[in-house]
Amino acid sequence: MSAPAVNIYDVIVIGTGPVGQTVAGAAIAAGLGVAAVERELVGGECGYWACIPSKAMLRPVVALADARRVAGARQAVTGAADAAAVLGRRDLYVNNWDDDGPAKALRSTGVELVRGHGRLDGLRRVTVEKPDGESVTLTARRAVAICTGSRPALPELAGLDEVRSWTNREATGSRTVPGRLAIVGGGGVGVEMATAWSGLGADVTLLAQADGLLPRMEPFAGEIVGRALADAGVDVRIGATVTALHRAGGTGPVTLILENGAEVEADEVLFATGREPNTFDIGLQTVGLVAGSWLDVDDTCMVRALEDGWLYALGDVNHHALLTHQGKYQARIAGAAIAARAAGEPLDTAAWGAHAVTADYLAVPQVLFCDPPAAAVGLTADQAERAGHRIRVVDIDPGQNVIGARLYADNYTGRARMVVDEDSGYLLGATFVGPGVEELIHSATMAVAGQVPVARLWHAVPCFPSISEVWLRLLEAYHGQHHA
Amino acid sequence: MSAPAVNIYDVIVIGTGPVGQTVAGAAIAAGLGVAAVERELVGGECGYWACIPSKAMLRPVVALADARRVAGARQAVTGAADAAAVLGRRDLYVNNWDDDGPAKALRSTGVELVRGHGRLDGLRRVTVEKPDGESVTLTARRAVAICTGSRPALPELAGLDEVRSWTNREATGSRTVPGRLAIVGGGGVGVEMATAWSGLGADVTLLAQADGLLPRMEPFAGEIVGRALADAGVDVRIGATVTALHRAGGTGPVTLILENGAEVEADEVLFATGREPNTFDIGLQTVGLVAGSWLDVDDTCMVRALEDGWLYALGDVNHHALLTHQGKYQARIAGAAIAARAAGEPLDTAAWGAHAVTADYLAVPQVLFCDPPAAAVGLTADQAERAGHRIRVVDIDPGQNVIGARLYADNYTGRARMVVDEDSGYLLGATFVGPGVEELIHSATMAVAGQVPVARLWHAVPCFPSISEVWLRLLEAYHGQHHA
Repeated sequence: MSAPAVNIYDVIVIGTGPVGQTVAGAAIAAGLGVAAVERELVGGECGYWACIPSKAMLRPVVALADARRVAGARQAVTGAADAAAVLGRRDLYVNNWDDDGPAKALRSTGVELVRGHGRLDGLRRVTVEKPDGESVTLTARRAVAICTGSRPALPELAGLDEVRSWTNREATGSRTVPGRLAIVGGGGVGVEMATAWSGLGADVTLLAQADGLLPRMEPFAGEIVGRALADAGVDVRIGATVTALHRAGGTGPVTLILENGAEVEADEVLFATGREPNTFDIGLQTVGLVAGSWLDVDDTCMVRALEDGWLYALGDVNHHALLTHQGKYQARIAGAAIAARAAGEPLDTAAWGAHAVTADYLAVPQVLFCDPPAAAVGLTADQAERAGHRIRVVDIDPGQNVIGARLYADNYTGRARMVVDEDSGYLLGATFVGPGVEELIHSATMAVAGQVPVARLWHAVPCFPSISEVWLRLLEAYHGQHHA
Repeated sequence: MSAPAVNIYDVIVIGTGPVGQTVAGAAIAAGLGVAAVERELVGGECGYWACIPSKAMLRPVVALADARRVAGARQAVTGAADAAAVLGRRDLYVNNWDDDGPAKALRSTGVELVRGHGRLDGLRRVTVEKPDGESVTLTARRAVAICTGSRPALPELAGLDEVRSWTNREATGSRTVPGRLAIVGGGGVGVEMATAWSGLGADVTLLAQADGLLPRMEPFAGEIVGRALADAGVDVRIGATVTALHRAGGTGPVTLILENGAEVEADEVLFATGREPNTFDIGLQTVGLVAGSWLDVDDTCMVRALEDGWLYALGDVNHHALLTHQGKYQARIAGAAIAARAAGEPLDTAAWGAHAVTADYLAVPQVLFCDPPAAAVGLTADQAERAGHRIRVVDIDPGQNVIGARLYADNYTGRARMVVDEDSGYLLGATFVGPGVEELIHSATMAVAGQVPVARLWHAVPCFPSISEVWLRLLEAYHGQHHA
């Protein structure tokens, strides 16, 4: 352990979200001394203003939707979700935005928690501007890991400041249900928040670009989710671009003016229009990097631009995949690399090695906890083709062909696709949309990351009658057969 | 195609449950002529009196239980499952025990459906006793596949005939909810039926042997499910052996007398005390086999005792695993083997080859759709040790360590275990118990059947915050670490 008195540590971590905590933990486990800098709450965006509160709000909505889809259960569901109870549940899971517990837990692992705004200050140095205005400079013997995440990227739009629009923070933190909520952006955040707030009683209008909902997934994902949202009463508008907005009298309703001249009135408006890296004010320029840039990293998540290998960028800031689990994965891999380098041990940066974030390129999974959920891993058909793979694409309709899906939900609506590399025989990607697929996707992640040949998948028997028999149908379709 | 006029077919299948239909389909796909014999309903035990009706009844009960476990959803669930609607749902999924549709579908694939009781009648011959009393003899050029499944094995017990006890057939077919239901047997059927009927309002007493509930799974599975059943109001008694029973006045309540002298009174009693093969009256003796025996088969599911390789036994009758999905798997493999042999092509009976039921020995999965569900694949720790593996066993508590589990259900109660072969680095087995694990188990099946090394599992990133992060905790525990 380093001596805190002189502020020298083996590893300095900036940002204590799940990614920062993971790399800190890996370094501690390797016997390294670690300081972690946090300017807001220990636990980060994910813990207080993104994944955790959104899923805490979504789960009651989806659980009720799932019950309503089943005859015999439907009759026992007599109302909508109790909004106050749902928001109370959300408050509980974010610990009322109090990080005493997580801070204590982090410290108990041996990490020196330094509260304040951390900025790089030249080679291996981080200066922290503390809440009391004092500054302290920390020095890293081995590594500095930037884990500062991302923040909403807002469009240049006349009237945006005036309307006090919501970002993910207000959308996951509001203590009341808006009567009318307009959501700008049809990606994951937009779709999840449409599900949540619509389920809690808001009249939701969802405005998406021309590429539709969930544009990073297979096209059918956004189509199915869009139809389900519309059926649930959401006003889904594809190809709707906001050109201006204003709030009547400063406190009245918001009016959005669309490119086609239409107007949308709402009580609140959420902008879910993408993210930008939290790298604007972290001293990047002191080490020759560009403030506000995404940070290009190698397979160990070391920043390529710096030559002597001390700066790492993990999670959203490296732009590999803006997903908490992928950032944590990077942190596990980078943590092992930092430890190996500190110990003078050789690295294993071969594909799927202990020190290479191979899954970042080949097997990134994502679940959107909307209703119905949409989940995917690896490459879409389009991505695989553009990457030059010779592929075979197989689609099936679980509502028609998977009895386990129909038993799960009467009138099951969903779709499944797998993308197979015809040269290697490996699964390149899979997408599942429909009730109950949230946990099913990990079987595809196992197959993609495990590079299990399609011929072997035939021996991975899905239980009857579970939704997992979607695999059986996909494989049968691949082989041109159909069985019972 | 063979000419039906002379009753000669390439393949004769006895029994048209999912297993029989699957092997018939595989043979048809290979261009072979197929006759299928059915003495009851096309679709078999599974479709009318087991998996399908039981899951149709269980899903509403579990969907409501899941909703009740989530604050905000709980408040909207104001009653129990609507028993009449649940039983109506069940009727729908079993098509009111009418097999016209399935029979038509089977015929449409090119299979000659022969209704009646089929019995082997010497080498490659099957005589069918038709409903009208006539008999017809069919001859197989290539293969006869016995897919007759199993039936309840009832204990020798004084008074058993008199009480008109239930088996799985009445338990999944009853049109009314008994006031009090006693269930004898703590295996999968007993536990699932306790969940279903208790959820529909019956007072259930579940009597299990001293080895507890779900004795084929890891011990914690039965313990957790037993506590949950007790919490739901089921009177769970472990180590309760029934020694006699009688029904008062022939139409009154049933009284069970237990070994310890206690008595249990109920309106109906279900015996879920195991299965025996449906091989008592299928002419086994005409080919030198023993009537009523399980049929020992090789890796292609060919009956070993017969030398010239024409008789196959698929599904429950071969006693590998009494599970529909495993029988269907055997039927896919055996169907491919029958086709290859018919075409004079070489077989691939190496481990995991196209013509070897390797998963039967190494990767049998099972989900019990009780509340909470219990799911497992491969070997338990005990089985692995007895098989001579040098193993490492890792357990985690998702309710403590997996935020995705807690978001899925407040106060999540469950447990997860993985069993790793320390010599091969492969996963030998996994067991998940707790809400929402029904589809999660297939990820373990992928890992076990795919023989994905534990080191590679580290790259199969589970989505945050899903229950699948149970994998992350298992792997961290395996590696002696804990991360965010």
